Amino acid sequence: MRRTSFAEMPCSVARTLEVIGEWWTMLVIREAFNGVRRFDEFHSRLGIARNVLAARLQRLVEHGVLERRQYQDRPPRCEYRLTEKGRDLYPVLVAMLAWGDKWMAGPEGPPVTLIHSCGHALGSHLVCSSCGEPVDPRQIRPQYNIAKTSSAVADADA
Amino acid sequence: MRRTSFAEMPCSVARTLEVIGEWWTMLVIREAFNGVRRFDEFHSRLGIARNVLAARLQRLVEHGVLERRQYQDRPPRCEYRLTEKGRDLYPVLVAMLAWGDKWMAGPEGPPVTLIHSCGHALGSHLVCSSCGEPVDPRQIRPQYNIAKTSSAVADADA
Repeated sequence: MRRTSFAEMPCSVARTLEVIGEWWTMLVIREAFNGVRRFDEFHSRLGIARNVLAARLQRLVEHGVLERRQYQDRPPRCEYRLTEKGRDLYPVLVAMLAWGDKWMAGPEGPPVTLIHSCGHALGSHLVCSSCGEPVDPRQIRPQYNIAKTSSAVADADA
Repeated sequence: MRRTSFAEMPCSVARTLEVIGEWWTMLVIREAFNGVRRFDEFHSRLGIARNVLAARLQRLVEHGVLERRQYQDRPPRCEYRLTEKGRDLYPVLVAMLAWGDKWMAGPEGPPVTLIHSCGHALGSHLVCSSCGEPVDPRQIRPQYNIAKTSSAVADADA
């Protein structure tokens, strides 16, 4: 059954999910950040069915997250590289990694540590860029910018 | 067809996806952060099929992201509340929101602005907590902590 599209929802989370929310997609993106560019390498590292991988890569190209470049003519071979739009997904990946490290790691601890060019581990915590304080979600309120949001949301808020 | 489980992969991103990666799940979590607790309110705000919503909520309860509490006997009614594990997903949500705001918003701009208790918009950018500098993914290298990662990854790195 075809999934509901989130593409037209008046919500940036939903629209992001429309691009990255299919099963396997964030792992494909993880590999792209690891420097993987060629189909066969994505395939061997992920252990994903070839047709599923092809579909995920194609969708990411369509959404401008990856760009496809041909590097060989005979036979034709392409590589897939993150665009600026794709690189901007890094905070999403880092946030998922941090949560998984904290809540889903086994007794052996986090599988991978990200090391920044400063030489230290990339710490990950949410800070307000205006006041510099750590952010607790209970300190946040949403301001709705669009006059006409979905009727369900408007009714629920009334 | 049942999806491949990511639960045993030696990767925190994969294990996070195992919990939050099903279609709709992050939108259910978004509503929980908006203060939604009751099934009927999740249902009306999301426009999601009742059986799918029930399945998502159940899974989040099983994973300890939401806790279910009964607030009424006749008929029995429950509410769903974020646990500490669930609240720790906030950076994932904020990162998705920021990317969607930047890359997927229409000419009307971001649908929602998150306002911090300091009175200003919650800015969102990835900063290294060790040195304080903004982070570009090309400045990051992974350090593998587990001696025996999946053979596919080990072979690819060799």
